[in-house]
Amino acid sequence: MDIISIQKDLKKNNISGELITLGNLFINEDILPEENQITQLTGFSGSYAILFITPAKSFLFVDGRYELQAKKEVNLRRTEIVKLSEISFTDWLKKNFSKNACRINYNPWTISINDLEKFSELLPKATFAPLSEPDKLLSSKKVKVFAHQKKFTGLIAKDKIALLTKHLKQQNLDAFLVTSAANVSWLLNLRSNALPYSPLLRAYALVEKNGNYKIFAEHTDYAGTLSFDNLKKILPQYQNIGADYTTAPAILKDINDKIKQCADIITDLKAVKNSTELKGIRNAHLRDGVALTKFMFWLSKNYKGKTETDIAEKLLSFRKKELNFFSESFATIAGFSKNAAVVHYHAPKTCSALLKKNNILLVDSGGQYYDGTTDVTRTFALGTPSPDMIEKNTLVLKAHIALASAVFPKNTAGNELDLIARQPLLKEGLDYEHGTGHGVGFFSNVHEGPARISIHAKKSAPLSAGMVTSIEPGYYKENAFGIRIENLYYVKNAKNPKFLSFDVLTLAPIDKKLINKHLLTADEINWLNRYHRQVFLSLKKYLTKQELEWLKEACAPI
Amino acid sequence: MDIISIQKDLKKNNISGELITLGNLFINEDILPEENQITQLTGFSGSYAILFITPAKSFLFVDGRYELQAKKEVNLRRTEIVKLSEISFTDWLKKNFSKNACRINYNPWTISINDLEKFSELLPKATFAPLSEPDKLLSSKKVKVFAHQKKFTGLIAKDKIALLTKHLKQQNLDAFLVTSAANVSWLLNLRSNALPYSPLLRAYALVEKNGNYKIFAEHTDYAGTLSFDNLKKILPQYQNIGADYTTAPAILKDINDKIKQCADIITDLKAVKNSTELKGIRNAHLRDGVALTKFMFWLSKNYKGKTETDIAEKLLSFRKKELNFFSESFATIAGFSKNAAVVHYHAPKTCSALLKKNNILLVDSGGQYYDGTTDVTRTFALGTPSPDMIEKNTLVLKAHIALASAVFPKNTAGNELDLIARQPLLKEGLDYEHGTGHGVGFFSNVHEGPARISIHAKKSAPLSAGMVTSIEPGYYKENAFGIRIENLYYVKNAKNPKFLSFDVLTLAPIDKKLINKHLLTADEINWLNRYHRQVFLSLKKYLTKQELEWLKEACAPI
Repeated sequence: MDIISIQKDLKKNNISGELITLGNLFINEDILPEENQITQLTGFSGSYAILFITPAKSFLFVDGRYELQAKKEVNLRRTEIVKLSEISFTDWLKKNFSKNACRINYNPWTISINDLEKFSELLPKATFAPLSEPDKLLSSKKVKVFAHQKKFTGLIAKDKIALLTKHLKQQNLDAFLVTSAANVSWLLNLRSNALPYSPLLRAYALVEKNGNYKIFAEHTDYAGTLSFDNLKKILPQYQNIGADYTTAPAILKDINDKIKQCADIITDLKAVKNSTELKGIRNAHLRDGVALTKFMFWLSKNYKGKTETDIAEKLLSFRKKELNFFSESFATIAGFSKNAAVVHYHAPKTCSALLKKNNILLVDSGGQYYDGTTDVTRTFALGTPSPDMIEKNTLVLKAHIALASAVFPKNTAGNELDLIARQPLLKEGLDYEHGTGHGVGFFSNVHEGPARISIHAKKSAPLSAGMVTSIEPGYYKENAFGIRIENLYYVKNAKNPKFLSFDVLTLAPIDKKLINKHLLTADEINWLNRYHRQVFLSLKKYLTKQELEWLKEACAPI
Repeated sequence: MDIISIQKDLKKNNISGELITLGNLFINEDILPEENQITQLTGFSGSYAILFITPAKSFLFVDGRYELQAKKEVNLRRTEIVKLSEISFTDWLKKNFSKNACRINYNPWTISINDLEKFSELLPKATFAPLSEPDKLLSSKKVKVFAHQKKFTGLIAKDKIALLTKHLKQQNLDAFLVTSAANVSWLLNLRSNALPYSPLLRAYALVEKNGNYKIFAEHTDYAGTLSFDNLKKILPQYQNIGADYTTAPAILKDINDKIKQCADIITDLKAVKNSTELKGIRNAHLRDGVALTKFMFWLSKNYKGKTETDIAEKLLSFRKKELNFFSESFATIAGFSKNAAVVHYHAPKTCSALLKKNNILLVDSGGQYYDGTTDVTRTFALGTPSPDMIEKNTLVLKAHIALASAVFPKNTAGNELDLIARQPLLKEGLDYEHGTGHGVGFFSNVHEGPARISIHAKKSAPLSAGMVTSIEPGYYKENAFGIRIENLYYVKNAKNPKFLSFDVLTLAPIDKKLINKHLLTADEINWLNRYHRQVFLSLKKYLTKQELEWLKEACAPI
């Protein structure tokens, strides 16, 4: 399919538009390139977008991270880029389709019940028509499934299922259809190699209140799964079944309109890590810190003549040597100079930028280890950085420290914390267009709710002890350079147990060449020196003599 | 009426309970003692409570501020105190009345449409029955009404009404019944002497989309008002009328069940001050600062042998000398030593505490001036304060400065700002149980929404340029001392006009005897010195020679 063919169909059938989301039947999860309709139709390769095709035009909605990238990738004569920072998709829909009767097509496998209800309420005059032969957009690539062992998870699947069925009884439900792949993977302690960066088993699980369950999946080597087509027969057998409307595709409601909305309790259960998981997460971060430090040492000697792609490959090679390493947790962002100003930059495979001295390299990367998921961003000065780079990096560091050392009451929502981080930048009239932090899964999605620290997410969930979240303020100067400093933190009870605070997980030095000490308060200097001391003491056993010398200098107090 | 008679009636008519709120037909506004049914029935004199009387027992619901006071004031054999910190009123209702059919009486003048709908949804088996001859609970005291002159308001009533009617047209309404006394007062530029601290005209206004309006009020000297009984004839004439369900009493829905919910746009309009109002507010704060400074000078020489009541009276005497002064904006809180730890302390009229040296006096006070409303708290060291007092006051000052110097994006809600202020205290394991700030009216209520800066108010409105808000962090050590530092601020565009910041209105020195400079950062020291310089330069023309010398020292840089 291409845009022009879709437009012809729309015209022929007198349809006002077709809504295309970036995803398949696993709503809000990563997808494979062969599943990505938006890339296929527009060329846009970012991780989030909405495409709306009308008979005359097509519109690609992207957020602040992707405005520059979309302009570069998309044929602008055919597709108009709409900035979500200027108008929300729902406001745009309302503006253009609320006045007259119209018909809008959608794929009922790729739009959640929730979103479809929202759109229908928004446009009472519109008819939303599911495509007649909707594609699940699931790759037919063979998938290997494997168990996530109890030594890593702490709990066996049976005990996790008991937590879910207890909840079902409280909700007076006979069964629940888990449609989130991350939640199915957690619940059943199963993982797979389906995706390059998230080890999820992409499956639905239908769990009855007695604990019996069925798994729906396709193209896997796991025995006893049912194909998704079986849902058409099985789902109508349940009169009293729940699903989470935010991840359940709209087609399920067509199959059984008795399906009730019930928030998936697994989302909250898996966000709070148990003691086995936490121990693993700490160990995984230690090994990840070793890999990063070895990489940094290498980088300091070898950056000249290397490309951004070389950097990403080299870093991966260090991670691969570490115990329990499974994969990267996302495609490494190695952005040099002005490329670092593109928030989610990915170097083109050919002709990525050549590193030179007197500039900045931003590296955002992470690993999936069987015992934990990591995500870390460091910004490196190559040669001598400019005073502007040093000043801005110091402001970003101040922002990071402000939130990392915050204390907050229980029941605090993520959006109530974000501005603590942004203050040092906002006071200088600067800001960054992305959130300050996101929840992180356990050998699962590197971005995993409900935790989210963002002024843009007004309905954020409260943080709880046991959650893992990133803190990652940044600063991006278009066509010049970009900075981000990201660590992961474990949310724990503060000294006064009425309150919560953050405990650092990530162990890797922060480049002192980019810090102006005179812009830091005594408390900020103490924070940095304490952090570097912790990094040094944690990692020192695992390095060569030369690496150790380098780390000692990198972690020496300022 | 007394509780026993009510209980006899309930028994006789087989009614499960009667709900009594603290207020009259002006829901959420201040009331007079003779209008306070809860005080009359129970003796409780606090500013917030709910009373629920059953045939066998009565229950008084009070929040954290009033638990001790309620125990002292109420006959505990007849009335049980229920702590809202332990169970919300709605949870209590649900627990006790959701299972069986029952009938609950209420006064339809004193409960909003919104609350009645909430209660009815909560208890689907209950019948809520309005009292057959409900009392509006309006004092028959004669009220003097006066115009709020254009030189103060900037806009004449006709222009304000035009703003409202424009909104009515957008909402497709033929008329709107304004039931908030503060909103009627703003709309018509009318005020009265009905209440001791809020100069509101207590009236409803029925405004038609052509701009014609009727005023409903009683016991006033203002010509052309209609009594509230006229609503029974007039309201049913409108098929397409709106009211704000949060302030419209339930009886209006009984009179005309076509009344639609429509948020009162005046709440937002009046929150954003115009340039005339802002100029007045600045001038009022200048005069208020002069009165405060004269009081502080007097206090420094004369506190010995004075009582808390003397302090409040003396401060009022200074304010009374200032131009445009109308009344206090609330009953002055003058709390000495451990009394200051009671957040909403009011000294008993007889035998209030005697001030002594080497302790703290907290004074929270404000004035209603025709050109602005003030609200300011200062905490004074009498003699030599203890190191603990100095440390805690310095933390509160840090909290105040953190928020006062914050910069934040447009669309930031109050609850997203609160934790910026609390950080210096939370980091020491300390907190305060109240919000950090509240919106302030213009010659109107000193607490006036929608602005509110509180981690406890999760659905706070966004702040906008033009609003006035307090910043008032505190610290309270039970049975020892209490600290609060409160200024009013004007919300304005920051240097980068994408963002907002605060511009100080209150002009009065902050006691340096309670500040440990070594706990402040360079930025905090600069803030304080700049603020004191501004206070000194603003006030110096209006003081006697001795007062000026005192102020010079009080405002000298630290």
